[in-house]
Amino acid sequence: MPELRKDPVLGRWIIISKERRKRPTDFLIEQSATSGGFCPLCPGNENTTPPEVLAYDANGHPRRDGAPWQVRVVPNKYPALIIEGNLDKEGEGLYDRMNGIGAHEVIIESPVHEQSFSALPPEKMLLVLKAFKERINDLGRDPRFKYAMIFKNHGKAAGASLEHSHSQLIALPILPRMIVSELAGALSYFRYKERCIFCDIIRQEIKQDVRVVCQNEHFITLTPFAPRTPFEMWVLPKYHSSAYCKEEDSNLFSLAQLLSETLRRLDSCIADVPYNFVLHNEPLQSNGLEHYHWHFEIVPKLTSIAGFEWGSGFYINPMPPEEAAAYLRQSL
Amino acid sequence: MPELRKDPVLGRWIIISKERRKRPTDFLIEQSATSGGFCPLCPGNENTTPPEVLAYDANGHPRRDGAPWQVRVVPNKYPALIIEGNLDKEGEGLYDRMNGIGAHEVIIESPVHEQSFSALPPEKMLLVLKAFKERINDLGRDPRFKYAMIFKNHGKAAGASLEHSHSQLIALPILPRMIVSELAGALSYFRYKERCIFCDIIRQEIKQDVRVVCQNEHFITLTPFAPRTPFEMWVLPKYHSSAYCKEEDSNLFSLAQLLSETLRRLDSCIADVPYNFVLHNEPLQSNGLEHYHWHFEIVPKLTSIAGFEWGSGFYINPMPPEEAAAYLRQSL
Repeated sequence: MPELRKDPVLGRWIIISKERRKRPTDFLIEQSATSGGFCPLCPGNENTTPPEVLAYDANGHPRRDGAPWQVRVVPNKYPALIIEGNLDKEGEGLYDRMNGIGAHEVIIESPVHEQSFSALPPEKMLLVLKAFKERINDLGRDPRFKYAMIFKNHGKAAGASLEHSHSQLIALPILPRMIVSELAGALSYFRYKERCIFCDIIRQEIKQDVRVVCQNEHFITLTPFAPRTPFEMWVLPKYHSSAYCKEEDSNLFSLAQLLSETLRRLDSCIADVPYNFVLHNEPLQSNGLEHYHWHFEIVPKLTSIAGFEWGSGFYINPMPPEEAAAYLRQSL
Repeated sequence: MPELRKDPVLGRWIIISKERRKRPTDFLIEQSATSGGFCPLCPGNENTTPPEVLAYDANGHPRRDGAPWQVRVVPNKYPALIIEGNLDKEGEGLYDRMNGIGAHEVIIESPVHEQSFSALPPEKMLLVLKAFKERINDLGRDPRFKYAMIFKNHGKAAGASLEHSHSQLIALPILPRMIVSELAGALSYFRYKERCIFCDIIRQEIKQDVRVVCQNEHFITLTPFAPRTPFEMWVLPKYHSSAYCKEEDSNLFSLAQLLSETLRRLDSCIADVPYNFVLHNEPLQSNGLEHYHWHFEIVPKLTSIAGFEWGSGFYINPMPPEEAAAYLRQSL
């Protein structure tokens, strides 16, 4: 049973998720290349994954048994958290722990093995974005879960263990610390200004026009003012919204168009760059927050993070975001 | 001029430290191996570094001109922050920035190129620990600086750009966010309990005796309860102290003995493992804090950090700290 533990000083939760008995030296073994020809995510291999929880056909409808799928969501075969069981929250002296209960799912973004996410046409990317929404809403009905995190690791250096394009969702019984910090920072600003900080950021960025990468009617991609790493980007709705999972399909289509353009610009700047993206969404069972604003964070995997940064949470970034934005604007 | 910028949501400062004009694709070029035979840190090459700010002979005394040194501290030739200048703090709309003023020094830990830090005999490691103290105290007299961070990257995978054993010191005009969080968490506990949280942790760990790696009369090495990564360790004084920079030499010798044993145990578990360590110390110009407790954090570089963890500040650790402690205890 995996275990959630809280650092008592920082208030930060982590998962202890024991793998099959591992010796210390095993940790040094580099992740090997994807095993030969077999891909568990490809069509024809559906029986090698746990049973699917969602699948859309090419028209975005739930697929009939055995019919071809365009997007497919399955539980992760090696989940970090276990879906069955009780939390059994308890203290251990001054420490806090609970069982590692949660959901861990894989969103398979295309039936085509070599298809890259960024090259998906918007109507197909839309189905992925809809799948995110549908799974978050479904898991949000489980009162044990407080947060659903959608993330993607693209490329081996970014932590992708399989080549076939996919994202993941982890539903947690706690709020990850960075989300807690974002919510607290946003709330603090809202109390002072009575405005959403992200809305103010968007207004300022549009006005200054130095960190805007691209935009359309409803969405905007920025390089943030104080980025941790080169080419880091945020993708946000221009209108105020805290709940990704309540977005209309028409907005999600507009998002798909901009997300696609954003990732293609990045790829055009640095071919096939490994990257991670994460969806920052309001906590589950929230009811629309005035002070918070959902957004994607896209983080290319370029420079290594060294001890200084790890130890202090303080980053040294060799590329000003204004320059990164200029490169990205000129790249297509 | 490097620049400090603050993320307005998280309140997190970062440095923008532009390197010589760099194209986007340059970021992908892997750090190359240390250049051939030349090492700027070795004796005989003193004229290739900026002038030293401190150097001890083998007896720990300031070295006479040209005399052999055991430990030597020089400004970093490629500093992330610049020591001359004013902060010029200003706002840019809702953003905060200032000039990247600070100190960035390299502590050369031995004259012997192949000498590893962990294999230094305690009386030689003591001189390194004294050098840390002396430099922190000296930089602490500069009213522009708020924090001095000592850190070490050991091994290429951990970010070490040179083989010759060295640590670094960065003095900052702001508090790094993780230190702010630690101080806040510790203060919050202190207000509630009227005791230092680290002292309580040490008491509990000694009593439970499952996460203790090693200890001596004055210092203890633990695997923390909620570690981000396998074999992560803390080294702390058993007695309450918030100021590393006020420690007596006799205590530092005791620390050298335990730090040496700790790193040798780690190395014995996983030979030549890359690691980072960071000293978490009270802010400069503090006057001894009841609620805070200085400590080293040692973080072996094993598994990669992937998008999920980057995006959420939430880690999945496959090794329980109790097991790591057991391996480390049995390793020597």
